[in-house]
Amino acid sequence: MKKTKQLRSLLNSPQLEFLMEAHNGLSAKIVEETGFSGIWASGLSISASLGVRDNNEASWTQVLEVLEFMSDGTSIPILLDGDTGYGNFNNARRLVKKLEQRQIAGVCIEDKLFPKTNSFINGDTQPLADIEEFSGKIKAMKDTQTDDDFNVVARLEGFIAGHELKSVLERAEAYRKAGADAILVHSKRADSNEIELFMKEWGGRHPVVIVPTKYYQIPTERFRELGISLAIWANHNVRAAISAMQKTSEEIYRIQNLTSIEKQVASVSEIFRLQGADELLEAEKKYLPQRASKESTEGGDKQGDTSC
Amino acid sequence: MKKTKQLRSLLNSPQLEFLMEAHNGLSAKIVEETGFSGIWASGLSISASLGVRDNNEASWTQVLEVLEFMSDGTSIPILLDGDTGYGNFNNARRLVKKLEQRQIAGVCIEDKLFPKTNSFINGDTQPLADIEEFSGKIKAMKDTQTDDDFNVVARLEGFIAGHELKSVLERAEAYRKAGADAILVHSKRADSNEIELFMKEWGGRHPVVIVPTKYYQIPTERFRELGISLAIWANHNVRAAISAMQKTSEEIYRIQNLTSIEKQVASVSEIFRLQGADELLEAEKKYLPQRASKESTEGGDKQGDTSC
Amino acid sequence: MKKTKQLRSLLNSPQLEFLMEAHNGLSAKIVEETGFSGIWASGLSISASLGVRDNNEASWTQVLEVLEFMSDGTSIPILLDGDTGYGNFNNARRLVKKLEQRQIAGVCIEDKLFPKTNSFINGDTQPLADIEEFSGKIKAMKDTQTDDDFNVVARLEGFIAGHELKSVLERAEAYRKAGADAILVHSKRADSNEIELFMKEWGGRHPVVIVPTKYYQIPTERFRELGISLAIWANHNVRAAISAMQKTSEEIYRIQNLTSIEKQVASVSEIFRLQGADELLEAEKKYLPQRASKESTEGGDKQGDTSC
Amino acid sequence: MKKTKQLRSLLNSPQLEFLMEAHNGLSAKIVEETGFSGIWASGLSISASLGVRDNNEASWTQVLEVLEFMSDGTSIPILLDGDTGYGNFNNARRLVKKLEQRQIAGVCIEDKLFPKTNSFINGDTQPLADIEEFSGKIKAMKDTQTDDDFNVVARLEGFIAGHELKSVLERAEAYRKAGADAILVHSKRADSNEIELFMKEWGGRHPVVIVPTKYYQIPTERFRELGISLAIWANHNVRAAISAMQKTSEEIYRIQNLTSIEKQVASVSEIFRLQGADELLEAEKKYLPQRASKESTEGGDKQGDTSC
Repeated sequence: MKKTKQLRSLLNSPQLEFLMEAHNGLSAKIVEETGFSGIWASGLSISASLGVRDNNEASWTQVLEVLEFMSDGTSIPILLDGDTGYGNFNNARRLVKKLEQRQIAGVCIEDKLFPKTNSFINGDTQPLADIEEFSGKIKAMKDTQTDDDFNVVARLEGFIAGHELKSVLERAEAYRKAGADAILVHSKRADSNEIELFMKEWGGRHPVVIVPTKYYQIPTERFRELGISLAIWANHNVRAAISAMQKTSEEIYRIQNLTSIEKQVASVSEIFRLQGADELLEAEKKYLPQRASKESTEGGDKQGDTSC
Repeated sequence: MKKTKQLRSLLNSPQLEFLMEAHNGLSAKIVEETGFSGIWASGLSISASLGVRDNNEASWTQVLEVLEFMSDGTSIPILLDGDTGYGNFNNARRLVKKLEQRQIAGVCIEDKLFPKTNSFINGDTQPLADIEEFSGKIKAMKDTQTDDDFNVVARLEGFIAGHELKSVLERAEAYRKAGADAILVHSKRADSNEIELFMKEWGGRHPVVIVPTKYYQIPTERFRELGISLAIWANHNVRAAISAMQKTSEEIYRIQNLTSIEKQVASVSEIFRLQGADELLEAEKKYLPQRASKESTEGGDKQGDTSC
Repeated sequence: MKKTKQLRSLLNSPQLEFLMEAHNGLSAKIVEETGFSGIWASGLSISASLGVRDNNEASWTQVLEVLEFMSDGTSIPILLDGDTGYGNFNNARRLVKKLEQRQIAGVCIEDKLFPKTNSFINGDTQPLADIEEFSGKIKAMKDTQTDDDFNVVARLEGFIAGHELKSVLERAEAYRKAGADAILVHSKRADSNEIELFMKEWGGRHPVVIVPTKYYQIPTERFRELGISLAIWANHNVRAAISAMQKTSEEIYRIQNLTSIEKQVASVSEIFRLQGADELLEAEKKYLPQRASKESTEGGDKQGDTSC
Repeated sequence: MKKTKQLRSLLNSPQLEFLMEAHNGLSAKIVEETGFSGIWASGLSISASLGVRDNNEASWTQVLEVLEFMSDGTSIPILLDGDTGYGNFNNARRLVKKLEQRQIAGVCIEDKLFPKTNSFINGDTQPLADIEEFSGKIKAMKDTQTDDDFNVVARLEGFIAGHELKSVLERAEAYRKAGADAILVHSKRADSNEIELFMKEWGGRHPVVIVPTKYYQIPTERFRELGISLAIWANHNVRAAISAMQKTSEEIYRIQNLTSIEKQVASVSEIFRLQGADELLEAEKKYLPQRASKESTEGGDKQGDTSC
């Protein structure tokens, strides 16, 4: 099944589905191997792994290159955390075209202003994108996609910005009408109050996506009861990688030796397996002149010995 | 001190020095924070993290982009694992120019053939690069650098390819004469026999670099006794990240909840710290109109709440 | 019609068809507007326009980025002058995947060695790629394409390298059997002798492509009589651009004024037209909130006034 | 002399100096060869040559890649037409860092809003960037540069937007105080009235740059009398290339033959000369094993025969 259709099915299935974060080709493969049905290409994780801030420091085409590696290495759908669409409606529809070329299944855009201007705050509520302008952006994106199953998810930043339920619902409805395939309701509370209020009033009009990073202690069962379509585990692979690399680097730095580390980390062969070394060996047998077939197999084994 | 000069000092210092592997901006920062004096930009790790094989599947400019993020985020020197220089002498000298622009301190090139042709093996020894051609490549690279302290390290693949000590030494001497700033002797044995033999005959003519991935059980003290200049811990950060992400992904997939994971992985604040969120907050105070300075600080805190 | 199918039709049509060179998005659009049925993405022209040599100084992904702009801006098929496939069979099949993602209709690969080693010549004939190895590369590419209509053209460098007709024919047949969709016979002679000899013996077995840069004085009618499928005007847009820019730059430099130049060069409005400014104005009306529709039209006109 | 210092000298010299537009490595080389002292990397020309609109359709890193090719191929300074700095102060200071790495001598930023929102116009004057915010951006850029001679030029869009002289002067002074190294006054009038008014009141406080695309009929002598420092011929190379390629493509399409074209366009050898083919031939003699030096020279000549 096409990746776009796979994601569409996840959004519209009667059960609660899950996406797991990845931030490069390697983590994307791990997510797929683990069994997940889809990947969340997190803006925070991707920028962090590149070594920059999540403030559009990496250009949108640099993010696109990361996505291309992620998509090429996997067969499950990827939903991109696409910021505000990296500009206005014209930038956003250009993004859709580029994502489709790379078999990315969908993109989530948020109703914030670009670029982020933290210091321009004037009161209790932060200004969000103009509702009409944001709806126009969604419409432009939907009109641009050539694959009917490509997915645009509209992310509501209203609760984060201090807006009230009524305003958040009004935006959700406007975005739905503009053509969004699902609504992502974002909340920074440690409880699920905002999500619960929203779901009650929303009444199952359209698929809802959540990101329970802050309210991680809420039992998943509760999300099912509320009728959530998709929950995103938004940044836990990059966080796992950070802890592990910090610990490993520190131990090697202190001990100046690898003996104790060797058992704690994946083997070099495991790297090769994840890279698909076997497929290349098979392909070499098929496509290269076979003058010394015996050695060619050895040649493959040798990769593990010599690469560094 | 310039990064090139820092690396030069490490190569020429009387003690044994260490480089730790990194493969993206994030891991590079972690290596620096841990205390290491330099970074090994591993070809294997970089390709693995991108999700491709270490067979020139990523183009050399894609590797260059990874390096740029790594270099921008750190102040310690980076030594690139530069394959064969990505082509002939002309490609290699072009590489030097591009590395200097990005403040990469040096590059290690290996005397193998490009592209890797595993299946063309005709006997016990694999063909290596022509010694004269490889020496010309080194010379071209040294003639190209504009910073006197840029470092070219010549990596000997002779032992791996089944060549004898005499041949390996002959190449080492030719590369030294061609201008290489250090020699990397590679060995795939679990013991240090080849390294020991080489060091004995080499007699301290020029700095020697090793990669003890296979012979990790040899005590580091032995490397000191042998007069090794630099040991490279070549791929342990990416291997640590793989194990951690596999474990974390599997646990979340199984439990469908984050509660137990939360304590095992780095916090979201730790991501922000590594990204340098504080510097941006300070800069916003300095460079943005201060209409609501109280909220602007909050604005910063909010990054943690809203990013995903 | 899909671009791949369009190119396939050109290769297999009973008439002589033509491709015109382009080297960036702009020239590609001009080629399409002129009426040509297809575009030749020349390696020489692309490298020249980037400002580098045609010796793999631009990486294959940098070429790919040029192609993406070319393909996005046009609806006629593009045939890439793909060098040797940028490495071995594995690089070549990776290339096919990337080209398909960007809707490039086909690629022409040549049976030379990579990287080009001019100085390694040992006699009258230059070594070409191993025939079996090159056939394996073609096979690998054909096995990789997911769109049945994607086209792989095998370019014979035999005549250029001083090989005899028999050897060139033998290679042509091997490449055809390996799956090549057409054969490009290259000749550096000012007459068409080599082409004529080849066509006579070849006997219409498979579509043949030619590049009459050197034998431009041969009447096109002769190519028709010989049964050539496709003739490529290989580098004349970049050559036209060079002359024009040299002349214009020199005149402005000398006169220090634009008055005489203004009538000789395309207008600024013509740039906007080629960029598709009108489509954006229409889209703004459709997707942006219409608070001041009268001015918005003016806003569009103003682009011409303010851009530089 | 460093490129940054060269540009600084042009800005501060007592005479009127000129920059000529280029949009890729090729045109940049032509500008230098013609004798110009500096290059204007036009946003309009670069986007046009890529085949996209001048509305941030190409990402800022794609523009950066074009600049890198331009800078690598030339030794005269390049001033980038840098839009609004591609975002807020943080994006702009990141840009400065990237430009310095690529030896770009300076950047011109304009006091418009990002992204361009033509349709949001509410009256006679278009909203410009907040004066304080734009000044902060300039300050951030100047604080970021590590080379004292890097140049930030502030472009006044006030006249274009319908603002009055007083307001334009006020902004000019604010930008000068914020650290701008020169002021670019932009006008869309066919006469020089706005420029004259500005220069009169400005009184030589700081170097002034102009772009006489619209008022090209004003004699250059008049600019000298007004005390202008730098005039930019902003888009004439791309316009010359467009006319020439349209004419050449049309003629080849119509005639289906190259005979008449051959004399009208630059020769293939001229492409090689511009690419620096000779330097590579010399380098091959120096760095490649010389087994057949006679043929190697031929090998070079052959490039012209075989490339396409």
